[in-house]
Amino acid sequence: MIVARTKEEIFGPLAALRARGERLALVPTMGYLHEGHLSLVRRAKELADRVAVSIFVNPAQFGPREDFARYPRDLEGDLDKCEKAGVWMVFAPSDPRVMYREDHSTWVDVEGSLTEGLCAASRPGHFRGVATVVLKLFNLFRPDVALFGKKDYQQLAVIRQMVEDLDLSPHLEIVAGETVREPDGLALSSRNAYLSESERRRALSLYRGLSRARERFEKGERSAAVLIEAARAVIEPEVDRLDYLEVVDARSLVPVKRIEAPACMLVAAFVGSTRLIDNVELG
Amino acid sequence: MIVARTKEEIFGPLAALRARGERLALVPTMGYLHEGHLSLVRRAKELADRVAVSIFVNPAQFGPREDFARYPRDLEGDLDKCEKAGVWMVFAPSDPRVMYREDHSTWVDVEGSLTEGLCAASRPGHFRGVATVVLKLFNLFRPDVALFGKKDYQQLAVIRQMVEDLDLSPHLEIVAGETVREPDGLALSSRNAYLSESERRRALSLYRGLSRARERFEKGERSAAVLIEAARAVIEPEVDRLDYLEVVDARSLVPVKRIEAPACMLVAAFVGSTRLIDNVELG
Repeated sequence: MIVARTKEEIFGPLAALRARGERLALVPTMGYLHEGHLSLVRRAKELADRVAVSIFVNPAQFGPREDFARYPRDLEGDLDKCEKAGVWMVFAPSDPRVMYREDHSTWVDVEGSLTEGLCAASRPGHFRGVATVVLKLFNLFRPDVALFGKKDYQQLAVIRQMVEDLDLSPHLEIVAGETVREPDGLALSSRNAYLSESERRRALSLYRGLSRARERFEKGERSAAVLIEAARAVIEPEVDRLDYLEVVDARSLVPVKRIEAPACMLVAAFVGSTRLIDNVELG
Repeated sequence: MIVARTKEEIFGPLAALRARGERLALVPTMGYLHEGHLSLVRRAKELADRVAVSIFVNPAQFGPREDFARYPRDLEGDLDKCEKAGVWMVFAPSDPRVMYREDHSTWVDVEGSLTEGLCAASRPGHFRGVATVVLKLFNLFRPDVALFGKKDYQQLAVIRQMVEDLDLSPHLEIVAGETVREPDGLALSSRNAYLSESERRRALSLYRGLSRARERFEKGERSAAVLIEAARAVIEPEVDRLDYLEVVDARSLVPVKRIEAPACMLVAAFVGSTRLIDNVELG
């Protein structure tokens, strides 16, 4: 497995891969890899000849009061997992300056409904940072396919929009992976590492609330307010602060009152000082 | 010569070109081609096996009170010139909607000193529109080299910054072409078509003023204020409104007081209702 710590170390192996006519898949991550990431790697291996994984805790997508400094990191463990998963190359910039020169000043904004609500409301600049770093990774690797998890549902929508709008789509396919969960339903997240045992128990309320709503939906309930209320009754008593709990159109992410097209219920909540997100597709 | 009016018409010929292992140069233009554009095409032919020219009057880089609707267009004449110049493909979107879907919402901003002054001050949003459309063209064509004229000096600096910041630079070289002038010195511009005969005479003051400043510079004058005054004395009496006349650092475009590193004097002025720009490198 190739481990690249600078951009320059990517290009030689990449040129050789191209010369062999091989298809490349990219799985961008922030590291501290879990089964969610590894499921994307496995899917990537089905879709391409070679899989590259990027591991970069991107400062540009963290707000000034967020957890950039303490975001969990375990490069050795990550490399071990990637090696075992048959990854071709890990790109793990040795320093944020590898990705952002001192005079970096170009940013990508996806505007409109996709970045007006949900995480965009409480994390200003977050999706600007995500879009910019993901575009940079796409340009560095020029992958044929790139994979993202549905747990970051809004991120996935933003990236899909960017790929279409900036005309990357003729060359690049975006593939979404299902959220991977613990046996009890907790969505895998690197941030779960922050949770104490009791917080971990309370965090489960997100999945339980979303599941409650989905059961009601499957029995025919179409009112967003009723579904939200069903989830809220489960979640709110357990979390320290509910950031949002919404039912939105699955494509535009605009809140809906009645579900008449594919929709998604999304939640963000603080358990202790840890902000967790989860979602469930409705229809 | 291939004439593509939609994105889809690009990809077949482009794939064939790639399969042949040929190098591609792109010359992005807004059409109404003149000798400035054609000099870029000739340089492009030296640098690549095939030259593509895009012809697209990009609405996103025009302000609401600017000349988008009346910007001169002559597709037949342009195609004729491209054919004679040995262009491989002209991409001339048949409608702005070819480039911008109805729900287009992704924009590229180059921030900082490059877009704080000069044309950015009087044309808010202009460089956002330029950067976005140029990035889209780069993504569509994936050229090995792209060429831009130095007449649009700030645009060139913005594009160079974007290419570095977004990691296009490993794959794409940006080449600048010298400003081409009429025998009397007037910088070629599609907007010269707007000028009446007497406006045309007065427009020449831009070049004369810049030349006056350069003469003083070449004789050893290093004070920006003195050089600006020398140019202003020539230009201001002839134009209807001087938008800016500045001496800036050639890389950062930050105004300088004394010229101690490569610099550039840039001017923008209205002659009648026509806004013209020009510049001269100092050192």
